[in-house]
Amino acid sequence: MVEKLREAIHSGARQELLEFIEELHPADAAEQLASLSPREVAGFIELIGPSEALFTFEFVPFELQKETLKELPRAILKQLISLMSPDDRADLVEELDEESRERLLALLMKAERQNILKLITYPDDSAGAYMTTDYAFLHPEVAIREALNQLRLQAPRKETIYYVYVVDHSRRLTGIVSLEDLIMGRPDQPVAEIMHTNVISVRVDDDIEQVAKEMTHYDFLAMPVVDPDQRLVGIITYDDIFDVMNEEATEDMYLLANLDTDEKITTSLPQSVKLRVPWLLVNLCTALVASYTVSQFSETISRYVVLASLMPIVAGLGGNAGTQSLTVVVRALALGEIDIRGNSRVLLKQTGVGLFSGLICGLIMGGIAYAWYANIWLSLILWMAMTANLIVAGLFGAMVPITLRRLNLDPALGSSVFVTMATDTGGFLVFLGLSSLLLRNILGTL
Amino acid sequence: MVEKLREAIHSGARQELLEFIEELHPADAAEQLASLSPREVAGFIELIGPSEALFTFEFVPFELQKETLKELPRAILKQLISLMSPDDRADLVEELDEESRERLLALLMKAERQNILKLITYPDDSAGAYMTTDYAFLHPEVAIREALNQLRLQAPRKETIYYVYVVDHSRRLTGIVSLEDLIMGRPDQPVAEIMHTNVISVRVDDDIEQVAKEMTHYDFLAMPVVDPDQRLVGIITYDDIFDVMNEEATEDMYLLANLDTDEKITTSLPQSVKLRVPWLLVNLCTALVASYTVSQFSETISRYVVLASLMPIVAGLGGNAGTQSLTVVVRALALGEIDIRGNSRVLLKQTGVGLFSGLICGLIMGGIAYAWYANIWLSLILWMAMTANLIVAGLFGAMVPITLRRLNLDPALGSSVFVTMATDTGGFLVFLGLSSLLLRNILGTL
Repeated sequence: MVEKLREAIHSGARQELLEFIEELHPADAAEQLASLSPREVAGFIELIGPSEALFTFEFVPFELQKETLKELPRAILKQLISLMSPDDRADLVEELDEESRERLLALLMKAERQNILKLITYPDDSAGAYMTTDYAFLHPEVAIREALNQLRLQAPRKETIYYVYVVDHSRRLTGIVSLEDLIMGRPDQPVAEIMHTNVISVRVDDDIEQVAKEMTHYDFLAMPVVDPDQRLVGIITYDDIFDVMNEEATEDMYLLANLDTDEKITTSLPQSVKLRVPWLLVNLCTALVASYTVSQFSETISRYVVLASLMPIVAGLGGNAGTQSLTVVVRALALGEIDIRGNSRVLLKQTGVGLFSGLICGLIMGGIAYAWYANIWLSLILWMAMTANLIVAGLFGAMVPITLRRLNLDPALGSSVFVTMATDTGGFLVFLGLSSLLLRNILGTL
Repeated sequence: MVEKLREAIHSGARQELLEFIEELHPADAAEQLASLSPREVAGFIELIGPSEALFTFEFVPFELQKETLKELPRAILKQLISLMSPDDRADLVEELDEESRERLLALLMKAERQNILKLITYPDDSAGAYMTTDYAFLHPEVAIREALNQLRLQAPRKETIYYVYVVDHSRRLTGIVSLEDLIMGRPDQPVAEIMHTNVISVRVDDDIEQVAKEMTHYDFLAMPVVDPDQRLVGIITYDDIFDVMNEEATEDMYLLANLDTDEKITTSLPQSVKLRVPWLLVNLCTALVASYTVSQFSETISRYVVLASLMPIVAGLGGNAGTQSLTVVVRALALGEIDIRGNSRVLLKQTGVGLFSGLICGLIMGGIAYAWYANIWLSLILWMAMTANLIVAGLFGAMVPITLRRLNLDPALGSSVFVTMATDTGGFLVFLGLSSLLLRNILGTL
């Protein structure tokens, strides 16, 4: 497939290329283009023309889009950029180097240039950064027949015409009407009569994660974005939310695993090393604390060397239980299932789960240790230490993310480092501490 | 708010309740209802009537829906269930106890009963389980004017009329046309002339995770579901995919943390303990392997007790690095960024990242150990052991999920148990093994 495509581009077979994009969904056509060089993609666009290539080009991977722009002749570049949807275009311009950006902006009309420059000023995680300015709108006094005519004219340039926003003459959002409502209404009825006036909207500076929560709460196909004066400035559509949800889930999983959110499966080896080592060094610091704890019990360990082989069990199981509580709480915070009010019940429950899981697992481990070492005191110490450490695990697993959220930080950020430090250090301290106290005083040797 | 609502229900203030649902989005109204008892929600439905209550009721939490049904008089129950969208209704019936289910099915007409019984037979993770049968359809020979008339009639009972499916007279899916296309077309044109014939569809037994990937790939608002004979049987809409994406992300995070996917933040304490202890015991088994490894080096440890405090560092850092590689690979598999072909590069890269991170972190740790213990051999052993263990971490972090996927299992299922076992046991083995060999032979004591 790709070879045929490459050949068609090199031999200038325009008709063949037009058939290629006719036959495939733009997303699939773009997947094929992704294997080509920027020079070849540029050739493809030149041959079939920017307007034919547009939809496919918008699905091409971002990096390839950027490189392709550099290969396009001025006239074609100008057309292509003018046709692109404002949000995609702004994202692209934002990523260009200074020189390419200047070259590109110079080609555009003033209004387009200003639109781009405005869109790229919104913070990365804000509604403004994700919205498109290509929304369909109507005025309230228009009759439905006329409204449908206006939509026919607007449609080709709009992201969606299924939700149509009703604005007054200073662009303030006053209502919303769906295309379905318009189809169902009487042609001579004014839009104002059928529009919904309780419009739910988000602010341009709202966090996109919050916007995603609202859109999934209401099952909206699109969400209107307004400025502080309630003027409509853009919309966010359901497909943007698909992307946001994937990004947010990746972010939470990465933070729980102490990974930089910039890392991707395709990141180069040196870059991956550079992104991971700082987190590993943070982990090393907490490991040093745990190590120092152990070193304080050198004497006990050298007398009862069996403790050295049992202590990783106490710490390891605590780490696992801590991760369990942490993950449940982080996920519940992300999905909005708990908020920062009323979380003492969450704390209490996770601690309780730790207590009872610890009692059960500790009893089992105590039994296994008895079978191995036939020392009832050692088994008792294991039971107590594991119970105590799983209480620590539940408590910290819940407390750390809730505290981070209270401090307005991401609940997953670095939380596993804190929790692991608590369960490692706690596990060693309780197990070796109890052993020192009990074994030394009660027994002479093991 | 809730108190006013409760009062209105108890005093039978119908008008007030109608205003309540008029003012709020159904999702928000349902959130208020969620604080009421099933008896009160039933009273609410009886007062305003099933057709007015329908949209709000469909947003009420699932458990409360179930309990409310039991409180409704037969006539109201019958109306409400008939009005509900087929997918929501089938989900609800599936969860009812035998008796309630029989009672409810007996109330319905034969066609509705059969529709429900058919929908509940699809496996939980299949496209069939998520689809609705309320899709809008047309025949290809119909003119656009007539098509719009038909849609006006269909619309109130359909999940969406924005995508309209074109079927032949045996219901085989032959084309798709958007409402936008219809609005833009000439009234006398037949639908066949403007429909897209390259229809992308999924099979009723396809995995819903795969369907979600395709819908986000194509940015579809709805995806048609066909049976093995290519007959249209339902559609899956974007809002179902919102739910699927959240569920899938939760599932992956839970599996990586060794949590049962049935656990929720609201799960009761005893139930949480019951769900977590089995996973903790699996972890205990792997911890026992690591513990056994350590016990094999008792003699070395009792001679050089410093090893006991350093060994958790080697194992802990390995665990962290293993989780990093594991998370990157699991996420890439979930997002379809890598498939089971061509993954030797992934393995090689993760192992390489382990090698270089290990060399860097090991060198730093070696330096710290030298500052503490001033023994160059000990520092060298630490450096070597950490490098070796981070190679193990990268290799297993990539290999375990890829192997699970090859075996057609979930790549996240139990993978962290395997990886932790590899890095714990590997870390202790390499560090204590090297120490035994080198320290004992080269040095007399430490």
